[in-house]
Amino acid sequence: MKPTIQHEYPDEFSYCYGCGRLNDHGLHVQSSWQEDQAVAVYLPQPHHIAVPGFVYGGLIASIMDCHAMATAAAATIQAEGEGLDRATLRFVTGSLHVDYLKPTPLGPPLIAKAIVKEQKGRKMVITLSLTVNEVETARGEIVAVRIPETMMRN
Amino acid sequence: MKPTIQHEYPDEFSYCYGCGRLNDHGLHVQSSWQEDQAVAVYLPQPHHIAVPGFVYGGLIASIMDCHAMATAAAATIQAEGEGLDRATLRFVTGSLHVDYLKPTPLGPPLIAKAIVKEQKGRKMVITLSLTVNEVETARGEIVAVRIPETMMRN
Repeated sequence: MKPTIQHEYPDEFSYCYGCGRLNDHGLHVQSSWQEDQAVAVYLPQPHHIAVPGFVYGGLIASIMDCHAMATAAAATIQAEGEGLDRATLRFVTGSLHVDYLKPTPLGPPLIAKAIVKEQKGRKMVITLSLTVNEVETARGEIVAVRIPETMMRN
Repeated sequence: MKPTIQHEYPDEFSYCYGCGRLNDHGLHVQSSWQEDQAVAVYLPQPHHIAVPGFVYGGLIASIMDCHAMATAAAATIQAEGEGLDRATLRFVTGSLHVDYLKPTPLGPPLIAKAIVKEQKGRKMVITLSLTVNEVETARGEIVAVRIPETMMRN
């Protein structure tokens, strides 16, 4: 099985609270590239609630955030080729918009799907849909920006 | 000292991962009403990072989310009076928008300030500003909706 997009991030970009494989306290969101979209499957923990029985909206925003950045990275690899320098292949969030269409029940896995809607220079606009038991409960639109040098310490 | 807005939520609304005082694994965002705005001060943990040295955007979205809901609750109490039935006084997020103006450094406390921009029926539009060391690093606009009966189990 192909490693997830986040598992291909260089170590220095793998401490993210949302998706870093090296963050021991993180959420560990994982995304896979499937044909022309990225898919993340996330099982919320019992404490990830807003009110009992329903998933916390900030968790949904966090899943979408990391999933969108992974989508932007994967789409860039697809466009520019596998030979791309991975040391700079990390996106950060320029803006994040989530519409909560209905309450998201706690229990089943959350499925987030993301596509690239638009690319302009260093920015990419990603649109996302979150479903649970095949019901769409949230939609997102997130602007991903190639990481600025000021955020790279290595 | 006056208790925070979240400490006035009834127990059944106090399990939120973002701000619930009864959620043992939560972020424990706390908001205070100060004259005509709500203020939250949050100190991120070392693991709350996007890349080393910078705060995770999903954490900022989560702080803004809970802080906006608290702002809506506090503004409702101010408008309708202290005699209001608290059992229904909880807002949930209709939509969330965050603009990340610049990277947010990890270390100092994050200060989120929120005001009510607009009220229409059961909805309230809250605008937010996040600063660290007096530099604004993010802005938010969040729609808060009075909790629907389908999300109340008591």
